[in-house]
Amino acid sequence: MGRTSDARGKILTTAQALIELRGYSALGVAEICTAAGVPKGSFYHFFASKEALALAVIDERWAVQLRDWTRVLSSDIEPLRRLRRLLEETAAAQRAGQQSCGTVSGCLFGNLTLELSTQTEAVRDRLRQIFDAQADLVGTVIGEALADGGVAVADTREAARSIVAQLEGQILLAKLYNDTRPLDTLWPNCLTLLGARVEQDISAAALPGG
Amino acid sequence: MGRTSDARGKILTTAQALIELRGYSALGVAEICTAAGVPKGSFYHFFASKEALALAVIDERWAVQLRDWTRVLSSDIEPLRRLRRLLEETAAAQRAGQQSCGTVSGCLFGNLTLELSTQTEAVRDRLRQIFDAQADLVGTVIGEALADGGVAVADTREAARSIVAQLEGQILLAKLYNDTRPLDTLWPNCLTLLGARVEQDISAAALPGG
Repeated sequence: MGRTSDARGKILTTAQALIELRGYSALGVAEICTAAGVPKGSFYHFFASKEALALAVIDERWAVQLRDWTRVLSSDIEPLRRLRRLLEETAAAQRAGQQSCGTVSGCLFGNLTLELSTQTEAVRDRLRQIFDAQADLVGTVIGEALADGGVAVADTREAARSIVAQLEGQILLAKLYNDTRPLDTLWPNCLTLLGARVEQDISAAALPGG
Repeated sequence: MGRTSDARGKILTTAQALIELRGYSALGVAEICTAAGVPKGSFYHFFASKEALALAVIDERWAVQLRDWTRVLSSDIEPLRRLRRLLEETAAAQRAGQQSCGTVSGCLFGNLTLELSTQTEAVRDRLRQIFDAQADLVGTVIGEALADGGVAVADTREAARSIVAQLEGQILLAKLYNDTRPLDTLWPNCLTLLGARVEQDISAAALPGG
């Protein structure tokens, strides 16, 4: 099974990199197969369509991100420290991407939302599930911070969506300017949006392992 | 000159609607000309390339938006009321678009940023100029509010970028869910991000002409 699994993996990895760089619509199946070094016939053995490939790319990326977000947001440190770490790891990933390929590639889910969400319902549904799950994860932590008295929000879900919206908006600006500095505002803006008590010391130095 | 000007205008209007609906890469020149009812030969009379058309679409949209933003943000009412009106007019435009075509089409500039900014430098440059101008316009109003003592921000420019980021992020979510309710949070989040004094009465009812 080695060879066929390799082909599927190669197509997925190549497609993810190309979609990240140039979007979905600009790519053709033939180009993806050439770049992956896989015969075009193999493609349809693994994927029913280009849309099916896009969904597989989204699923693969989300599996990794969900694992990371769950690790960071379910740890046993204080809730606001977990949120801070999430935002810092997100910024660090964008910086690492820029250093390795020269451009801030942004958020695959945000990119595909603006490119595709009004075109394919299957992609839109998958992206909605992902943004729902992100809001759930962040909302749970905000709920814990609320119980601790560390933040003051009227609607936990809405606050979580606003944190996610700020994240997507700043990543959009970081991508446009090819400059990760907008991401430095994520944490102070998150604290502000949550009405966090300013006297709290959620400094980077105080983060265990941070 | 009537006929040729009409052809250029038809191509521009059609391209703007199609790009809004399906993005840039998914479109071909032939399709745009067919939809506009213009012979393909005419296209290259007016536009050197598809990229030149994209730039013209961006310029045309920005001319309208700049006029609107300037009208709202340069009026002589209090600074925060102007910001509120800007965010409310933005939300109203997205609602009107949804009512007329069934989907929230989002922000053309945000859409093209995530689809194209890493692909064509000319488009990226134009979009940077637009987001710079938006931050300038919003920053000027924040500066006035700061002078009035109505808000508390350490860095006017950074605060303006955060307002724009929140706007783009919430419009992204509104587009994904085809639901304009995320836009209802724009104004309260703006007040929060600006550290505005909560006792200020910037209610909708109090807006002159609002």
